[in-house]
Parts: sequence; C-alpha cells; structure tokens
Amino acid sequence: MRYSAVIEYDGTAYCGFQRQRNQPSVQETIEKAITAISNRSIRIIGAARTDSGVHALGQVIAFDLEWRHPPEALRKALNHTLPTDVAIVRLKEAREDFHPRYDALSRSYEYHIYNRTNRSPLMRLNSWHVTRPLELALLNEAAALVVGTHDFATFGQPPQGVNTNRTVYSAGWICRDDIMVFEISANAFLQRMVRSLVGSMKAVGEGSWTVESFAAALKAADRSRAAKTAPAQGLYLVSVGYENDV
Amino acid sequence: MRYSAVIEYDGTAYCGFQRQRNQPSVQETIEKAITAISNRSIRIIGAARTDSGVHALGQVIAFDLEWRHPPEALRKALNHTLPTDVAIVRLKEAREDFHPRYDALSRSYEYHIYNRTNRSPLMRLNSWHVTRPLELALLNEAAALVVGTHDFATFGQPPQGVNTNRTVYSAGWICRDDIMVFEISANAFLQRMVRSLVGSMKAVGEGSWTVESFAAALKAADRSRAAKTAPAQGLYLVSVGYENDV
Repeated sequence: MRYSAVIEYDGTAYCGFQRQRNQPSVQETIEKAITAISNRSIRIIGAARTDSGVHALGQVIAFDLEWRHPPEALRKALNHTLPTDVAIVRLKEAREDFHPRYDALSRSYEYHIYNRTNRSPLMRLNSWHVTRPLELALLNEAAALVVGTHDFATFGQPPQGVNTNRTVYSAGWICRDDIMVFEISANAFLQRMVRSLVGSMKAVGEGSWTVESFAAALKAADRSRAAKTAPAQGLYLVSVGYENDV
Repeated sequence: MRYSAVIEYDGTAYCGFQRQRNQPSVQETIEKAITAISNRSIRIIGAARTDSGVHALGQVIAFDLEWRHPPEALRKALNHTLPTDVAIVRLKEAREDFHPRYDALSRSYEYHIYNRTNRSPLMRLNSWHVTRPLELALLNEAAALVVGTHDFATFGQPPQGVNTNRTVYSAGWICRDDIMVFEISANAFLQRMVRSLVGSMKAVGEGSWTVESFAAALKAADRSRAAKTAPAQGLYLVSVGYENDV
C-alpha cells in the first residue's frame, strides 16, 4: 500500500530534505522512524528537495508499506518516534502510482525577512536579518514582475535538464510587524530560485537596485546578474498542490 | 558610570537569567561579554529572574562600567561579542542609583499556547502545545478575574518575604491563527505566577475547570489549589516599566 503524508519540520539541524552521506537529513530521519515502527527498510520520496536549514510546513512525501492498522495509527506512531523537530501533519492511503514530485501542480513558499536594526535572538533561526529599511511598495513592484511564465535562469539552476522556464502563479510581499513576508506560488522552481529572487528583491527594497535593474536582470536570463542569494533559514516550503488533496 | 540596557534572549539554552554554578545563565553570558570588551570583571543586575527556558523581549539590566566611548559603541561591541541567542536592544547612561528591580513599576509578560491537535516542530521551543481546543471566551472570563489587587498565593511563592498580594493592571487572551496569546501586566509577580495562572486558565479554556472553580481557587490563596503549572518555553518577558524610559 502506498501512503502519502504532509510533513512539518524545523530545518535548522538538517543538511536538507534529501539523504546525504554522513549528514543528518529529513529524509533519513523519517525513513528511520518508519523502519523503527514497521521493521522494514523503506525509502520515501519527497515533493521538494529543500536545502540545508530550510523549513517546511507542508512538505509532501510518499512511501510503500505493509501496515495492518488504520493510517491514523501509523501517523501517531510516527509522531511518537520522530524527533521533536519533524512531525507528520496528515497521513493517508494514496493511489499506488502517486508520486509527490511528478504529480505536483504547484509549490508555495514563504520567505521571512526580519527588518529591524537590531538582530533578534528569537527570530535568528527563522528569518534573514536585514538592517536597512525595506520599502514594501518597491518589494511588491519587483514581485509583480516575476508573475507569469519567464525564463528564470538569472535566479537558479534547473535540478535536471536545461529548461529554465517556470510559471509563477502569484508573488507578493506583506508586512507583519517587523517581518517582511514574501509569498510565492509556481508550477515548479529552479534550485535556490526563491532565495535568489529574495536576494535581488531585497536589493530593490533597500534602494540599491532600481525596479528597472531587477526587470533587466530577469530578462537577461544570466545567473551572474542576480544579487546575493538570501540565506536558507528564512525559507519555508508552505504547501504542494495536487489535483486531489493529500 | 551606570548603564541600563534592554535585552532580548532566546532562553532555550539557559538555566534562566540568574547566574548559577555550573550552568549557563543569561546573566553570566552578558557579564562575560562586558568583561571581554572592557577587561573589567563586573556584575549586572536584572529586573526579573526569568526561569530556565523562559524568553525575553525586554529584560532590563544595569551595570557600572568605565567606558570612554558613546553608549551606542558599547551596545554594538556587546552585540558582536554576545552569542546569537542574546542581544542588547537598547543601551544608555542611567542615573547612578538606578536599580532595574527596585525601580520597576510594572512587568509585562506574554504566554503562547499552540492549540492544535498536531505538535509543531517550528513552534516547539516557543510555545506550549495544548491539543484540546481552548475556548477564547472562557479564557478571558478567567483572565478578567485576576485583574486588580489580590492575594495570589494560589499561583506562586513570593521571591522573598511573605507578602503574596500583587496588583494586576491588565490580563487577557487573544487568538493569532493557531496560537492563543496571554498578555498580562502587573506591578510585580510571584515566582512562577504567570505560568501557574496559565496552567489553571488552560483548565478553564478546555472545560475541565469551570470559571467558578478558577475564582474559588484564586480566593482560597492556597498553592495546592492551582492546576499544573504551564511549561517555561511558552513564556516571554515582554517589557519592564519605569517612571522614565530605559
């Protein structure tokens, strides 16, 4: 039986979602928990390969397992077994050919910038600390330029193949107290694309780039034209969209 | 010269504010940073002795130091020297007899309850996870009962002496998404008072206590009548009030 699950994690202690030799990954952590419960060695597939330090509220995974009890019992057993920085939010039976990555229609991310002069001990592991004041209207002018289908080669590498076209469904910034939150949804993303976009939009927001220079960088489709990539700890994989709910 | 400073910290790694033998405290961490910069061994005084795991957005400290540069240079040097989980938000010259604890007119705390069935990896170090749904109106009925001057012996021990009367200026709950936030301001608090109040109000909010039983417990002035004390990681010292700004 194939199961799908929605996963939340604090990425601080992990080298990323994907299994790596000699480094703790979210994938290995979940696989170990399933093995501990079921006594079977299994592999899970994730919808997105989040980088080291990136967080997730709605990563989606799938795996095959013989399990005689209800899915909810599996979810609870896994949550008791997993460390406190990883949790299974939902778990259910899936179609036998369900694939979290190939079947995904959209991915949504948030990026949090802590925009205050002082560094914040309580926000340090969950946001990028930017000291120069960012202008929300400028951030949103830049964000509006990325909506639609574009060649995003300036802002990332394709995980495989050479196609750097992606379709952004929505992109915008909101302000919550001292935190600037970037919300973006697309059919798919290039490697580091959200963080690279945020790095360049931050340059616009603080006035070191004009909106026009951001537009020109996007149009150039040249990786060397991006500003410095934003750090990992501000990024959250919020959800992955499918034709049917997972 | 005496200096006052407002401090933010993530209490996760500390045994509390106050210096303890063989355990890392916020006090010792700040004292070491001042010593590293000034080459003088000094002692700081804090406004509140926060417990192990409790956070602060606005702890207030004072210390005496010979320093030839502007206070802002001291603040910056300290922030470069301190670990990432402690920061100096503001720092200025103070009256030579300023005492953060004796001069304080009020203290304000927040307590965060994460009220969802699933545990949250991203909220685990900053909130109490309560799975049973809490009713906001009931929480606020209980909170309204503590406003004013009462004998709070049910909800804590006095740090010294025997007087357990305290005056609560305001107390109330608000709901932010899945988080129930308790805000309370008082002239002073007994040891564990906010966490003990939250533990008993949570019993009211989930329906295991009536508002009347909360009122009776308060009136009894008997420590054994409180419900289980809420855990430390949900508590934040937000600010300390003085006649003049610090």
